[in-house]
Amino acid sequence: MAMEIREDDWVVCCGSSDFAKLMVKASPFSSLETAIDVAREIWFNQVNVPAWLEAFAAHPQIGNSPSPSNNSDFARRSVAEQSTAFATTSASALEELSEWNALYRQKFGFIFIICASGRTHAEMLAELKGRYANRPIVELEIAAKEQMKITELRMAKLFSEKAEVVSQTES
Amino acid sequence: MAMEIREDDWVVCCGSSDFAKLMVKASPFSSLETAIDVAREIWFNQVNVPAWLEAFAAHPQIGNSPSPSNNSDFARRSVAEQSTAFATTSASALEELSEWNALYRQKFGFIFIICASGRTHAEMLAELKGRYANRPIVELEIAAKEQMKITELRMAKLFSEKAEVVSQTES
Repeated sequence: MAMEIREDDWVVCCGSSDFAKLMVKASPFSSLETAIDVAREIWFNQVNVPAWLEAFAAHPQIGNSPSPSNNSDFARRSVAEQSTAFATTSASALEELSEWNALYRQKFGFIFIICASGRTHAEMLAELKGRYANRPIVELEIAAKEQMKITELRMAKLFSEKAEVVSQTES
Repeated sequence: MAMEIREDDWVVCCGSSDFAKLMVKASPFSSLETAIDVAREIWFNQVNVPAWLEAFAAHPQIGNSPSPSNNSDFARRSVAEQSTAFATTSASALEELSEWNALYRQKFGFIFIICASGRTHAEMLAELKGRYANRPIVELEIAAKEQMKITELRMAKLFSEKAEVVSQTES
């Protein structure tokens, strides 16, 4: 039995609806590696800049948790990815992060995107401050690359969960 | 008497409201050359990607005239810039341009931007076809550079008109 990956599974990996539709169109994939190659081609060469902005907008701000009422798979992934950060954070770090997030958004017109897995809030704040100096077009491309890292981690998780479902169904 | 350039004059040069506001803030300018240097710094390094998209969206599609009811200064500039093109065009060229404009907009999520002054529709169509193959982020930067060329031509026109008003007032 092949894995069934639906459009809303892809939206959890990356919040661009064009990305999700093109991944469904390119399915099925023989392996995670093949799927990631296709996802990179779609993300960097096929979906457009408004689609990138749509994907960025799907994330909570770093240092913010999605509200408890937001029980979506996307929100759960965001929380899990910031687990290292929240385990080691402080009120003052969160406050400074919040201020810099606001400056960043004001300058670039989109939220600060960073692959948060395994990183502390202090590390991400240092990254934010460094990236703040960039030209907007340069920062857009960095954000798109960070989004792709997040997408790849989420795809790996998606494939391992789906594989489990398939093996449970078959046993 | 110094030239008085208002925010809506700057919006005629470039349809980003952030650009217009920052140009007002940086005023007055001792010469057109100084103003262009400042405009380039603001356009490429200060206003963000959503502001670029706002500026692109202010233009009519190449090959389309603004509707006769659109009597704005911005629309008049667009018509004047395409005067060479319209003087030498044909129905079939306009049809092909319209089809490619639609393909372009579908791929990139914004209108095809090109500095039209002195160019024929056939030349612009050839450019469009060449640029269509670009990655979205690459094309975004090319479009921003074309917008800056348009802005510079419009600033030159604005400064010469304002200089005329000043000299008439003084005589």
